[in-house]
Amino acid sequence: MIGTEICLIKSSPVPSATPENSNMDTLININLDHGDPVMYESYWRKIGNMCDITFNGYESLSYFANGKSLCWFLESKLEEEIRRLHNVVGNAIVDDYYVVIGNGSSQLIMAALYALSPTNQPHPINIVAAAPFYSSYPEMADFERSELHKWAGDARNYDKDEPYIEFITSPNNPDGVIREPVVNGIQGKLIHDLAYYWPQYTAITSPANHDVMLFTVSKCTGHAGSRIGWALVKDKEVGRKMIKFMEVSTIGVSKEAQLRAAKILGVISDSCVNPTLDNFFEYSQSLLTDRWQRLRQVVKANDLYVLQKYPLQYCLFTKKFYETHPAFAWLMCKGSEEDCEKLLKGHKLQTRGGEKFGSYSRNVRISMLGKDEDFNIFLQRLEAIIQELPDGN
Amino acid sequence: MIGTEICLIKSSPVPSATPENSNMDTLININLDHGDPVMYESYWRKIGNMCDITFNGYESLSYFANGKSLCWFLESKLEEEIRRLHNVVGNAIVDDYYVVIGNGSSQLIMAALYALSPTNQPHPINIVAAAPFYSSYPEMADFERSELHKWAGDARNYDKDEPYIEFITSPNNPDGVIREPVVNGIQGKLIHDLAYYWPQYTAITSPANHDVMLFTVSKCTGHAGSRIGWALVKDKEVGRKMIKFMEVSTIGVSKEAQLRAAKILGVISDSCVNPTLDNFFEYSQSLLTDRWQRLRQVVKANDLYVLQKYPLQYCLFTKKFYETHPAFAWLMCKGSEEDCEKLLKGHKLQTRGGEKFGSYSRNVRISMLGKDEDFNIFLQRLEAIIQELPDGN
Repeated sequence: MIGTEICLIKSSPVPSATPENSNMDTLININLDHGDPVMYESYWRKIGNMCDITFNGYESLSYFANGKSLCWFLESKLEEEIRRLHNVVGNAIVDDYYVVIGNGSSQLIMAALYALSPTNQPHPINIVAAAPFYSSYPEMADFERSELHKWAGDARNYDKDEPYIEFITSPNNPDGVIREPVVNGIQGKLIHDLAYYWPQYTAITSPANHDVMLFTVSKCTGHAGSRIGWALVKDKEVGRKMIKFMEVSTIGVSKEAQLRAAKILGVISDSCVNPTLDNFFEYSQSLLTDRWQRLRQVVKANDLYVLQKYPLQYCLFTKKFYETHPAFAWLMCKGSEEDCEKLLKGHKLQTRGGEKFGSYSRNVRISMLGKDEDFNIFLQRLEAIIQELPDGN
Repeated sequence: MIGTEICLIKSSPVPSATPENSNMDTLININLDHGDPVMYESYWRKIGNMCDITFNGYESLSYFANGKSLCWFLESKLEEEIRRLHNVVGNAIVDDYYVVIGNGSSQLIMAALYALSPTNQPHPINIVAAAPFYSSYPEMADFERSELHKWAGDARNYDKDEPYIEFITSPNNPDGVIREPVVNGIQGKLIHDLAYYWPQYTAITSPANHDVMLFTVSKCTGHAGSRIGWALVKDKEVGRKMIKFMEVSTIGVSKEAQLRAAKILGVISDSCVNPTLDNFFEYSQSLLTDRWQRLRQVVKANDLYVLQKYPLQYCLFTKKFYETHPAFAWLMCKGSEEDCEKLLKGHKLQTRGGEKFGSYSRNVRISMLGKDEDFNIFLQRLEAIIQELPDGN
């Protein structure tokens, strides 16, 4: 779910046919701030009833799941489909890993912090991530004012001779860059947040095999409303502590959401191995590629904005070269004094300013996963801003 | 969900026909420790497909719900059915209250602590509850080692001239007693945990109208696997902070679980107002009454145990007098030195000892909501323990 801190102002559900109006007061607000992945809806509509799942009144009453997993509330069918999908896609090693399920990967981030924080230290452990970092990490580390951990800022500036936990978000939120650990200290524990390490966003170059890896249905399939995330955890004791966190804070995870997620992940795996089905990742690659091409065209046509560039890499899953097409665009307005969020807000485009990511106000993060109509209006307005400027730039 | 801290050792799914064996090594373990409410399954099987709900692949993709609620992730249908059920049952005032939805009431307990803890104080606020108290409260208050709040023990011993938060659990977990605040200080904030204030457990004597009231689907309908709880909150700012807690920790609550819960609560309300349907609360009252009668018979037949007694009260919902039939039995083994949990464990009956509730080891809490076969074996063994003792007592 990375990058989805919610803004309560929803974009108005005005249909795409609504004409854009140059009178600012009547313009609808377009929310590109949060990463609500509704773009994938067209795929799920297209495949028809393959994902239908019915619950009757007497199912899933118990707190307990039916499996034999270390994670006592994890439905065995979901565990099976998670392992299968990773094997099909090749983006993570699952053998000898424990699967821990969470209410979205947010809860797993909190659980991982809890599990990796030493309890025998006089001071909270330092939490770092290289800037620009996911804007929710600082809040997640500190909002409970825990004595176990505290936010310690940009990993690149971390030079303390103390234990620390580093988040490695790869591809990174907000900027889509493939990442490695930055601190590389001997006292470090690592959390690999791999929410976007799926073929629609980036080439799968090798199966990840880190100590703690986080994934989420939200960004993989688009089902953010289900609140299902999972962790692959190498160490049993860390897994146990994460499960304990889930037990105390929510006594597990909705069985309905788990069973539906199992169905959906299963359909995705099927779509990858059965040539008669429409491959989910190829479909979503084409959607993202199209949006990115159109955005780059608008940006290229002027001298006001810069977009992050990405390498072309060979994808082991698609057996083709693929350029990263992140879930967010990390747009820079040229001119070091420019406040890009403010500039776009003036045109009723709600984005998230770079400062929230430990970066500069000349940057903004823009969701690429919203509705078609919103994305189209966004491009129109971005173009219009350029035309309004003196000399058209 | 109150009273449901999970024990990872599940009772074995041996069918009820399995003969009890006097050789202890071959006896199956019967878990009466947690409050898994599977007893209601027979009702949900009986009503057939009235509760069926189907999700297709393209539904509920968004983080956002479709309503206009302050709680931006709350499905409007669920809010509607929560309000309707309280109106039908008459156990809580809903007008002028905000509804906040959570992943079970555990998360709402944490959210309420977060929302009610002052942020401008040098010391954590004291959290208290009158003993015997729900055994998870101390852990929930302290497991994150928050500087916002800390567990301060039995409310009856609280005499500090400092701000505090008091949990009032009514009917109480573990002992089923109807409760009022104990501290009554001017600096107190109250959380009313009303998970068991439903007609199957106790007479509804008046609609509750406290500042923060917590409820859960788990204990109302038996659908613990859905992880749906709700809070009725009088103050908008407190509501906002609870929603913020949910946002940071899990970005909301599964839409599948919410929509299924809406359906189930709706069927319960229907069953209360439509005489052609089998009234859920009357049905579950009869199940609990039967179990309590059989347990009291066993206990009465000897001098080893004592059970809590409850008053007969007029229920505004059923328009009849009803004795409290709690979800847990609070059993006392006579003899001040007796360790009741240990005694029962020796007969492979897993219960929760009184010390975990801030009480004495001569008490145990026993779930009354488990499977029929487990309950039957429990009664057989309880009887057998008596017969094994010298002089049969």
